[in-house]
Amino acid sequence: MKQAKVAIFMGSESDLPVMSKAAELLAAYGVEHTVTVASAHRSPEFLHERVAESEKEGVQVFVAGAGGAAHLAGVLASRTVKPVIGVPMGSKLSGFDSLLSTVQMPRGVPVATVAIEGAENAALLAVQILALADPALSKRLMDERKRQASEIAQKGRKK
Amino acid sequence: MKQAKVAIFMGSESDLPVMSKAAELLAAYGVEHTVTVASAHRSPEFLHERVAESEKEGVQVFVAGAGGAAHLAGVLASRTVKPVIGVPMGSKLSGFDSLLSTVQMPRGVPVATVAIEGAENAALLAVQILALADPALSKRLMDERKRQASEIAQKGRKK
Amino acid sequence: MKQAKVAIFMGSESDLPVMSKAAELLAAYGVEHTVTVASAHRSPEFLHERVAESEKEGVQVFVAGAGGAAHLAGVLASRTVKPVIGVPMGSKLSGFDSLLSTVQMPRGVPVATVAIEGAENAALLAVQILALADPALSKRLMDERKRQASEIAQKGRKK
Amino acid sequence: MKQAKVAIFMGSESDLPVMSKAAELLAAYGVEHTVTVASAHRSPEFLHERVAESEKEGVQVFVAGAGGAAHLAGVLASRTVKPVIGVPMGSKLSGFDSLLSTVQMPRGVPVATVAIEGAENAALLAVQILALADPALSKRLMDERKRQASEIAQKGRKK
Amino acid sequence: MKQAKVAIFMGSESDLPVMSKAAELLAAYGVEHTVTVASAHRSPEFLHERVAESEKEGVQVFVAGAGGAAHLAGVLASRTVKPVIGVPMGSKLSGFDSLLSTVQMPRGVPVATVAIEGAENAALLAVQILALADPALSKRLMDERKRQASEIAQKGRKK
Amino acid sequence: MKQAKVAIFMGSESDLPVMSKAAELLAAYGVEHTVTVASAHRSPEFLHERVAESEKEGVQVFVAGAGGAAHLAGVLASRTVKPVIGVPMGSKLSGFDSLLSTVQMPRGVPVATVAIEGAENAALLAVQILALADPALSKRLMDERKRQASEIAQKGRKK
Amino acid sequence: MKQAKVAIFMGSESDLPVMSKAAELLAAYGVEHTVTVASAHRSPEFLHERVAESEKEGVQVFVAGAGGAAHLAGVLASRTVKPVIGVPMGSKLSGFDSLLSTVQMPRGVPVATVAIEGAENAALLAVQILALADPALSKRLMDERKRQASEIAQKGRKK
Amino acid sequence: MKQAKVAIFMGSESDLPVMSKAAELLAAYGVEHTVTVASAHRSPEFLHERVAESEKEGVQVFVAGAGGAAHLAGVLASRTVKPVIGVPMGSKLSGFDSLLSTVQMPRGVPVATVAIEGAENAALLAVQILALADPALSKRLMDERKRQASEIAQKGRKK
Repeated sequence: MKQAKVAIFMGSESDLPVMSKAAELLAAYGVEHTVTVASAHRSPEFLHERVAESEKEGVQVFVAGAGGAAHLAGVLASRTVKPVIGVPMGSKLSGFDSLLSTVQMPRGVPVATVAIEGAENAALLAVQILALADPALSKRLMDERKRQASEIAQKGRKK
Repeated sequence: MKQAKVAIFMGSESDLPVMSKAAELLAAYGVEHTVTVASAHRSPEFLHERVAESEKEGVQVFVAGAGGAAHLAGVLASRTVKPVIGVPMGSKLSGFDSLLSTVQMPRGVPVATVAIEGAENAALLAVQILALADPALSKRLMDERKRQASEIAQKGRKK
Repeated sequence: MKQAKVAIFMGSESDLPVMSKAAELLAAYGVEHTVTVASAHRSPEFLHERVAESEKEGVQVFVAGAGGAAHLAGVLASRTVKPVIGVPMGSKLSGFDSLLSTVQMPRGVPVATVAIEGAENAALLAVQILALADPALSKRLMDERKRQASEIAQKGRKK
Repeated sequence: MKQAKVAIFMGSESDLPVMSKAAELLAAYGVEHTVTVASAHRSPEFLHERVAESEKEGVQVFVAGAGGAAHLAGVLASRTVKPVIGVPMGSKLSGFDSLLSTVQMPRGVPVATVAIEGAENAALLAVQILALADPALSKRLMDERKRQASEIAQKGRKK
Repeated sequence: MKQAKVAIFMGSESDLPVMSKAAELLAAYGVEHTVTVASAHRSPEFLHERVAESEKEGVQVFVAGAGGAAHLAGVLASRTVKPVIGVPMGSKLSGFDSLLSTVQMPRGVPVATVAIEGAENAALLAVQILALADPALSKRLMDERKRQASEIAQKGRKK
Repeated sequence: MKQAKVAIFMGSESDLPVMSKAAELLAAYGVEHTVTVASAHRSPEFLHERVAESEKEGVQVFVAGAGGAAHLAGVLASRTVKPVIGVPMGSKLSGFDSLLSTVQMPRGVPVATVAIEGAENAALLAVQILALADPALSKRLMDERKRQASEIAQKGRKK
Repeated sequence: MKQAKVAIFMGSESDLPVMSKAAELLAAYGVEHTVTVASAHRSPEFLHERVAESEKEGVQVFVAGAGGAAHLAGVLASRTVKPVIGVPMGSKLSGFDSLLSTVQMPRGVPVATVAIEGAENAALLAVQILALADPALSKRLMDERKRQASEIAQKGRKK
Repeated sequence: MKQAKVAIFMGSESDLPVMSKAAELLAAYGVEHTVTVASAHRSPEFLHERVAESEKEGVQVFVAGAGGAAHLAGVLASRTVKPVIGVPMGSKLSGFDSLLSTVQMPRGVPVATVAIEGAENAALLAVQILALADPALSKRLMDERKRQASEIAQKGRKK
């Protein structure tokens, strides 16, 4: 059985171009992860199985991207007490429906929502969470933060 | 075991004042129904059990009221191929989040959405659906429609 | 005279590319249907005639797609007590005006609203309603639901 | 039969407190008018009769107030080529749905929309239209405009 | 000096492609009109002069198209008691800002607002207003309405 | 003639409770100012006179509060090249229309917009502008900023 | 020096009634925490000091509540690589501005956003994160989840 | 050290095409300025340094363009008592999030917000502010305003 720290879910194959950025960022930080396409509405049983399976594989953080009436992250959050990070996908309403469907969760079942199509930030947030118990990862986050700041500072003055 | 044609679900006890109007309208039309409070997020297993139970009780139409990131109707719709009618509840965002979370369902899993807090219309729509196979119910709908029109016509001219 | 179970209406020829998906889904399920272009505003008499005609043809469910100040579904609903399903079309405001004009119906005249440009789901909802009195259709819906879930489950694990 | 220049319609008795301001302004300008409560959805036939009757009574301008999926003004506009002025009523969504349902009319059937709950301005617009053929009315409008400006100018300097 | 019944104003040269549809419709109905580009903000004096000039030329109805913080129609309306019809232009916010800036006028100074980029309907509304004093024009409006309805009725049944 | 550095305008008497906070802040900083109620729509001439008068009185910065289709700040900005600060007032649409009508100005005529009902900040911005040429005022701004920060720092740790 | 796992920040004293629910939930789970009122705009230095101090106190997760142009969570996130949870507060725009200002963060600096005024869920998310390294806490979360589900299941069937 | 009157900041290199219009307008008016790319979130220290540096260079007005959760202008405003002008950049939500994040600042820290992507107007507002102490600049503003008005007046009459 695979070992993984983060499980990335998305509601549809069409979300892959956006959500694969989350996978790339996790790979860059050396964080083991799985990727699953599973609809909260069209394949609820498979989704539940994959959540249970993910917990057995050692998953600590879930990342879920979905659009429109975006229930995926909420359904995950109802199936685990591990942190669930929601990525609202773009949509006919510019992702506005996805955002509200993801973030406005009721008391007792939070979803940690990031920006519309912010898959990379979702993964980064997962790394920040994992880094609490992993000093090396924490150091890499701080180094990267410094590197970015330094890069901006070097290029920042235009005129 | 109870016999029922319509099953009314709501996400929280606080939805009762609005959703009980749906029960009242069904009662007025003599339609057997059940009422259940079950959260898509806090009690998913109970929700699934009640859906299965409802189908066994003979339920033909589901009515679901929920607010905020309103997933209840969508989760019901993922568990049955019977028609599911969604009632977006009021919320901090005036029910705007509830509406989008209920109506913007993906291909393959429709939710028949009515107006924000339109519980009465949700029940009426359920009656319209049941009336397709029940001429007496159909006649009552037409009579009521005529009665309303006639009442408006009598009072309508103010000046 | 044609026999039909579902009548699809749309407000304008320009809605055909979207609304024809509803016709295709109905055809796939073997459900007889008619297709009419009729504006609630520019051809109200023709619209009323077609509604009356549709009822005589045996229509059980109406599907109506319109955009902007989308009154088509509401006008249909004021002319029949059969279930009316509304499809908000895209618009200059991303279908937002169409959605609100379709869903926010007053007490007594519900419109079962689906997602913006969700013509396929509107047809599927019509099939779900018809299937209540048609066990074969009901079985096909369940089979298709299972087939979809199974397809997703087989392809769902990406990594 | 009554003679009237303006016919005020509203969708519901509950719109009277707002819409009566339109009647009051017309009365202040000495413009004959009628007031009718008629729902586009619950009493379509009565509405059509009242429109035809209004035209016979000499009505030149229609004013229609409705809320939510506000189709009243649009339905009137589909039944006459006289100018129709729409007043979006307040609603659970602050009148936002009413505004879009009233103003976003398709090509060929305009509704002259005023502000949310702007019943007084709707009546004033009707007076402006009637004044094109009535120099005395036109003079009263200009006098009132000047009176208002003068009143503001006298009180305007606070400090 | 030119004789004109309708004066079309727009806030910017870039509004011409949309607003010229208003001119075309007026031409089709044989209604004399003028066309002016004048910014409420960048050329207020010229705007005021053109309004005064327009009244002298016999203008009965003003049509004003503007986008963003669309003040043009409102400024016109503050300068005349003739009916002013506002056309909200498209914008970075899909014309949403233009719509609200045009329609939400204060008590005493109405703007008859039509749909976003509804220039043709603005002109049609102007024709409807002029037709109140012009039976031939009124007849043409009714004929055109019938022609449209008849055309839709002939083509409307698709299947 | 009065000497004044800032001229506060508002569209209606009803804006006084909010806009008087701007006057109070200016008074607290010892900045001479005038207060005028003048509608862009109902008293355009008076408004123009007061703008001209204000410039003669030495006014350097204009502050304008208005709601709904809020044109007041924009009209002021079209009449002066002095900085104009706009305060969107609350409204039936929560000030959302006021905000868009104030901020979305076309190229060439900016309005410096502050938060909805942010009259105090409008005045503070005026002080910041005047302080560029007034070292004492600048020092007072810095002192007040420090005082606030220090007050927060002293009280900030709750537990 | 205090030991604390979670640091709760809020932008203003007026946020206390909402944000104290976060503190209460943490207390109920026995999680050490601090509470600080610090404005991102009015006391930036104090805010930075408190962030640095918090890290020294052992803080693993930050919770930040702010309204309007809600920059507090974002500023915290720019100062630490620990997870930052944002709570959008209610506002004149129903918290809509607060939500967008909190969630729409740029690449590289995520904020884990919860529902508008969802302070309790923010704290629960913090507990979920801490529980990844604390089996006892994790068990308490699961027990509480089960208790809630069981309570709903017992009361859920109304009729 | 460079002398500059206006400092233009932007949150990202991708904002350059829009924000460079601000630089061009300042150049056209002969106003010395600097241009800096600095993220409020990814390079807070560099940002603070550049603000302090700018004040030393003689900067009187700050212009800041940023998108999404646009905190840049607000962070600048928390670091200086000089006027800060905010330019909301376009975004996945059409700049709507950027606008609210920029304009809805709390009491005590105003940001003078201009239209979405209104970089040119931001620069013009800066010139208007500087012109208060620079009669030659003030005259150029008035000349340009007249030139524009005259150009519109000459071309304005189309037909």
